[in-house]
Amino acid sequence: MSKGLLLVVSAPSAGGKGTILKELFQQDPNLRMSVSATTRKPRPGEEHGKHYYFVTREEFQEMVDDGNMLEYAEYVGNCYGTPKGPVERWRADGLDVVLEIEVQGGAQIKCVAPDCVSIFIAPPSMEVLEKRLRGRGTEDEETIQKRLETARKEIPHGKNYDYIVVNDRLEDAVADVRAILRSEKMKSERNAELIEKLLAP
Amino acid sequence: MSKGLLLVVSAPSAGGKGTILKELFQQDPNLRMSVSATTRKPRPGEEHGKHYYFVTREEFQEMVDDGNMLEYAEYVGNCYGTPKGPVERWRADGLDVVLEIEVQGGAQIKCVAPDCVSIFIAPPSMEVLEKRLRGRGTEDEETIQKRLETARKEIPHGKNYDYIVVNDRLEDAVADVRAILRSEKMKSERNAELIEKLLAP
Repeated sequence: MSKGLLLVVSAPSAGGKGTILKELFQQDPNLRMSVSATTRKPRPGEEHGKHYYFVTREEFQEMVDDGNMLEYAEYVGNCYGTPKGPVERWRADGLDVVLEIEVQGGAQIKCVAPDCVSIFIAPPSMEVLEKRLRGRGTEDEETIQKRLETARKEIPHGKNYDYIVVNDRLEDAVADVRAILRSEKMKSERNAELIEKLLAP
Repeated sequence: MSKGLLLVVSAPSAGGKGTILKELFQQDPNLRMSVSATTRKPRPGEEHGKHYYFVTREEFQEMVDDGNMLEYAEYVGNCYGTPKGPVERWRADGLDVVLEIEVQGGAQIKCVAPDCVSIFIAPPSMEVLEKRLRGRGTEDEETIQKRLETARKEIPHGKNYDYIVVNDRLEDAVADVRAILRSEKMKSERNAELIEKLLAP
């Protein structure tokens, strides 16, 4: 069995990443969502190992020191990170693992997981992005403007990803991601064994 | 419109490349087959510009000298090569171009067309390859053994290609190639314009 892929997915603010991933997970039983470790307290209903790994500051620090964190960052006073262990175990079992990550973290992850496949989800246009933000009807004008400003800063980082998927029609974007998964498994650098096995006496 | 892809496809002897490409061309109207130039005389029914570009030795030599040949080789006394012009015109029109090439030529093509996408079509096993060869019922034992020997020499070159597609079930192999085409179009290095356009005022 060949090793599963590590799929790193980022999107600018309101890029529609969540909807694409939800649909993708419904279609692909071979996919697992990476679970983050955090130092913040669990909220009601949150389960350890499902929503987050809830750890102490000391435990978190130890994981970082031992090189067991794929990426990490502090966010409003709490630490968040992606433990390597579960990701590598799933991949060893041939399962593909999705890692949602902030746009800024996209470049960082390639240093610790050079064989990951990174996808940047881009809106078809800034107009559509704005329309989608307003369509939610949950944010005031100031928040909308802030999110658009953030998106404008994040979009240039798309160049650092392996692939750019334009989120125009949902079904197309999901099929795009599935095509990437399918084709990446055929990359020759992932299939050296295949050739050896073919020629084994 | 974005530039079309140049898809370089090779397979070891009797790898089933022809069947896969035939099916692929039926499914994908955006695909063109590259036409070779040759110095050999046309056979009955062969059309200039469709089956081959029939040229003189001098014309062929001139195309090579002017850097207008993507790859070329001599074969039983005649020269064969892939003229750049038509390939580049199709690609400029957004069409994807398929270039069938000998396994040994796979490494050469990356030097002149570094943005090409190369696919090596591998048999699922040497047993299946042998069975397919015998199944044709057209070759004697000596030819079959020679072809198997050639395939064994060619298969290690699969490493030099971007992708390895295993030709087990035809429909899977065709879907594999289509997934590669689809995903390669999303490569961020091919989509720098997309980001610029998104952020243009």
